[in-house]
Amino acid sequence: MTQYKVPVIPGDGIGPEIIAEGRKVIDAAGERFGFDVEWEEFPHGADHYLETGELISEDSLKELSQYSAIYLGSIGDDRIAPGVLEKGILLAARFYFDQYVNLRPIKLLDGVWCPLKDKTPEDIDFVVVRENTEDFYIGIGGRAKSGTSKDLLEVHRSLYNAKFGLDIETDSEEIGYQIGMISKEGTQRVMEYSFDLAENRNKHVSSVDKANVLSDIYGFWREEFNAVAEKHPDVKTDFNFVDAITMWFVKNPEWFDVVVTPNMFGDIITDLGAMVQGGLGLAPGGNINPEGTSMFEPIHGSAPKYKGQNKVNPIATIWAGAMMIEQLGEKEAADAIVSAIETNIREAKVQTYDMGGSAGTSDVGDDIARIVLGK
Amino acid sequence: MTQYKVPVIPGDGIGPEIIAEGRKVIDAAGERFGFDVEWEEFPHGADHYLETGELISEDSLKELSQYSAIYLGSIGDDRIAPGVLEKGILLAARFYFDQYVNLRPIKLLDGVWCPLKDKTPEDIDFVVVRENTEDFYIGIGGRAKSGTSKDLLEVHRSLYNAKFGLDIETDSEEIGYQIGMISKEGTQRVMEYSFDLAENRNKHVSSVDKANVLSDIYGFWREEFNAVAEKHPDVKTDFNFVDAITMWFVKNPEWFDVVVTPNMFGDIITDLGAMVQGGLGLAPGGNINPEGTSMFEPIHGSAPKYKGQNKVNPIATIWAGAMMIEQLGEKEAADAIVSAIETNIREAKVQTYDMGGSAGTSDVGDDIARIVLGK
Ligand SMILES: CC(C)[C@H](C(=O)O)[C@@H](O)C(=O)O
Ligand SMILES: CC(C)[C@H](C(=O)O)[C@@H](O)C(=O)O
Repeated sequence: MTQYKVPVIPGDGIGPEIIAEGRKVIDAAGERFGFDVEWEEFPHGADHYLETGELISEDSLKELSQYSAIYLGSIGDDRIAPGVLEKGILLAARFYFDQYVNLRPIKLLDGVWCPLKDKTPEDIDFVVVRENTEDFYIGIGGRAKSGTSKDLLEVHRSLYNAKFGLDIETDSEEIGYQIGMISKEGTQRVMEYSFDLAENRNKHVSSVDKANVLSDIYGFWREEFNAVAEKHPDVKTDFNFVDAITMWFVKNPEWFDVVVTPNMFGDIITDLGAMVQGGLGLAPGGNINPEGTSMFEPIHGSAPKYKGQNKVNPIATIWAGAMMIEQLGEKEAADAIVSAIETNIREAKVQTYDMGGSAGTSDVGDDIARIVLGK
Repeated sequence: MTQYKVPVIPGDGIGPEIIAEGRKVIDAAGERFGFDVEWEEFPHGADHYLETGELISEDSLKELSQYSAIYLGSIGDDRIAPGVLEKGILLAARFYFDQYVNLRPIKLLDGVWCPLKDKTPEDIDFVVVRENTEDFYIGIGGRAKSGTSKDLLEVHRSLYNAKFGLDIETDSEEIGYQIGMISKEGTQRVMEYSFDLAENRNKHVSSVDKANVLSDIYGFWREEFNAVAEKHPDVKTDFNFVDAITMWFVKNPEWFDVVVTPNMFGDIITDLGAMVQGGLGLAPGGNINPEGTSMFEPIHGSAPKYKGQNKVNPIATIWAGAMMIEQLGEKEAADAIVSAIETNIREAKVQTYDMGGSAGTSDVGDDIARIVLGK
């Protein structure tokens, strides 16, 4: 019997409830496919932060880095200012473990209600590869002095003429600024991952940028995309401005196979993608470092108002669990979980409120575990 | 008879064709409501740039600044690298004239095909106020040396401890970076415009940001929003993360009344909004400086592949023309144009291909002009 040890961070709000169902289903898959998971719980999240002042310490991160996969519920709590937990735990982990791929399948499962007219599961089946460690997520910014919009106007106009110098003073309240950066290495590796993925799918990679306006950062992105594309002459490529791609996700989702996107735009378009595939309750994600520690999570938040009510849909988390065990090497078990999710949805007997049912979170977990076990 | 002089920049691709229909309809409205427009053509766009090297000169901008409204077709051409014309003409004008409001109505007209299930014209009727002169559109960025993703990681982690210094060297190819800034004055004025607008609508303003991650720039945005909101206690407010709002535009567009957004996020969500209201062929926009020179345009691009084919939908441009004459003071005529657009759509006899018809661009212009004239 193969043994795995998997750290789990249930987190805040509904996190513990949905993670319980994910574990239940993975345990069932282990029983059927002959592996055993020992779960090690980590306490990080709002309560732990309020009690101890620790978001996630270097020591905890070091401990977690011994594992190849982490199972994460959700992070976020109304008692704490927006961003503190998300940056201090979720983004800290993504950066610390250098999880440079955020893999988000956009797949409409058979039997799921889609908000779009005339679209079927055949039309909606692609994957977004979101760069996950750079761009505007690096957390560099501040407040600066001097700079009414008139000064900005001067700065802007001077661009047409010459180089400029930027003099940033802190401790002033006249301007808020933010800096994004992408590196050659950081961009190329996520492109390479995307092209490799496309080689095993429909050989089509679509890049997302806004190179016509944010030309410095995303002109660079485009160049690196072209450089990697050259090495894959059999893969079809195209560019999409981020504004336009939100239209195509709604109008022509069937166009896409693999979509590679900078971090921030990826954040935006994968929420839209989640809606197109039937809602956040169904959208899983993996933060992947192929050579290191990866982390799997539903892409939705901690939904504090549903906490402890046994009400929300655990499918995103269960699906993320399937992605995780696939990463661990249990491909057959992972497929069985996804197939069990599909059966549960097709049967439409045990579903949470968001899918029109009245079952509880744990009922859905029970049902999917039952199907996995072939009962 | 009131006389107006309006500069018009037909621009590239389909620009001249759609602008011709916009002028036709405004001329008809003038005939009916007793005003006369003298149109002054400006040549700016791809051909003019290729012939003369001028994008738009300070002299041209100065000349245009004598007017209170400009009518713009579309800018963009495949022969020229992405961004050159858009930044050199369109964004240059938005910045030069300090058109700090980009007003984009998202309204599903009766009889228009909506890609969303179960949504009717009653559900989709809101306005996006996009800040139009700051944020990541200021054009500041470059290439820098030093900075593999590991360095970025260090930078990121150091944030949890202390202030940092950023040493940017140019002429290197290792990093692409971009800087966005918003100012107190620039943010407050667009907030004030939004609240004033909401006072005359359904007294609800929704703010868009990503303050949980781009905390420096959008934390500032939130503070200014709160400061202006305090002066309007009768207006309901809420915050939306930009990722989440793409979901609500699809799932619950009926929630919104006035949506105020930073420039870049506004670019993204208004394209999505255009799709939700039936497609880019139907989405108008106004770049507004309430005390200066405003500029009205369809929000779609120059669609080079349709150039000269008398094929594309002129409704977005005609609608933008209605917004323009309303700004000039001809409210009754503006209402008559919008109502004529609605009649044309309801009758469904003279429509372009995107709406399922087979009429040409000029047929639609003729039909709407006829309706305006009450013929
Ligand atoms: C919670 C937040 C920091 C996070 C992000 O912006 O990446 C979330 O929206 C996501 O998409 O995983
Ligand atoms: C053409 C481009 C520069 C422009 C923008 O990004 O603002 C366009 O997308 C728009 O929305 O008007």
